[in-house]
Amino acid sequence: MKTLSKTLFIISITLLMIACGKNKPTATPVEWSEQVTLIQPNLEEGLTINQALSLRASCREYSEEPLSLEELSGVLWAAAGINRPESKHLTAPSALALYPIRVYAFTPEGVYLYDDEGHALKRVVEGDHRILSAAQDFAYTAPLNLVYIADMSRYEGLNMSAEKCEFLAGQDAAGYAENVNLYAAGHNLKAITRGSLKSAEVLALLGLESGHRVVLAQTVGK
Amino acid sequence: MKTLSKTLFIISITLLMIACGKNKPTATPVEWSEQVTLIQPNLEEGLTINQALSLRASCREYSEEPLSLEELSGVLWAAAGINRPESKHLTAPSALALYPIRVYAFTPEGVYLYDDEGHALKRVVEGDHRILSAAQDFAYTAPLNLVYIADMSRYEGLNMSAEKCEFLAGQDAAGYAENVNLYAAGHNLKAITRGSLKSAEVLALLGLESGHRVVLAQTVGK
Repeated sequence: MKTLSKTLFIISITLLMIACGKNKPTATPVEWSEQVTLIQPNLEEGLTINQALSLRASCREYSEEPLSLEELSGVLWAAAGINRPESKHLTAPSALALYPIRVYAFTPEGVYLYDDEGHALKRVVEGDHRILSAAQDFAYTAPLNLVYIADMSRYEGLNMSAEKCEFLAGQDAAGYAENVNLYAAGHNLKAITRGSLKSAEVLALLGLESGHRVVLAQTVGK
Repeated sequence: MKTLSKTLFIISITLLMIACGKNKPTATPVEWSEQVTLIQPNLEEGLTINQALSLRASCREYSEEPLSLEELSGVLWAAAGINRPESKHLTAPSALALYPIRVYAFTPEGVYLYDDEGHALKRVVEGDHRILSAAQDFAYTAPLNLVYIADMSRYEGLNMSAEKCEFLAGQDAAGYAENVNLYAAGHNLKAITRGSLKSAEVLALLGLESGHRVVLAQTVGK
């Protein structure tokens, strides 16, 4: 019985490879403009969660090769996408369900804010400002740097110290970023969670000097 | 061509289902004693990373059903397992590569410390202390509660404020916990990251009153 099952397994894997060879993941170029409409993830795609965990690593070397629309869409969905449309809950949790984190994408083409409900990137500043989103050379030329900024007004009225609020916001962002790390590991992409960037300059660029904190950053690429 | 590829796909999936039906994941009961030797993860197992992200949710209802050895092993490996034996790097990243987080497992049988190098749980306190590891009823009877405790001595000599060190430790733990959330989602388990527990009592129970901080907790079960 074991031999039969093994034979069936080998036959079926071979047939699958033939069948899937004609359906390679597509790689659509991103058309950067005022808004980039992202596409929904294909749930069958990517390695297993175990393989992703086994490949998770912090990478400090990136080519300038851009992400495809499929990859960019997957990364943003992993970070902060809605995975239960009826309740609008996200792929990552948030302490006290306050969801203070805003995800900004620093790209060669501009700085974009991720809109979870529209699953889209919306341009907030034109031009290449990646140098503000990091403090290490490898990030300045990588195709995507994410900056996680907390809207601290979400904690108002909770009688928590500023440190406690920042602690919780930092944890939220770390969960978003770890989702991206695993998504990257499961899709042959590279990533690293980073704490160092030009936070004051980022907030000034985005006009968020008041009531916001930069809590984490991340590079994603190839 | 498309029809042929679709037909091949259907045939191969059917054959795969027949083949795999005879190889269901095994569920070995855990033998709780002074040390629980965990098993290495099967990398082919589990849903895709995309499916895991799509199913990630914070669950507040658990049965008392215990985790199998395979499940327990996978959860601890996801949290803080070594995924690159040559460098001893973990499945989750740590800010400044300081790795201050220790993972404690509160179970009906005792409190255990996860040993990453041995991939084993080592008992530190006998008996059921789950009530200290949470502040919500559902956790007291769930089979596994993880408590993430930071060894703050790891930050010594870095000239960072206590708040900054705690912020970084909290982010490390949130990454570990998010790995577990996605592992759970990808293996038909339930999980929730939690901030509330009896931290002072936990530290006293473990004899860690000095130089340690409880930074996060998590429930895992079925």
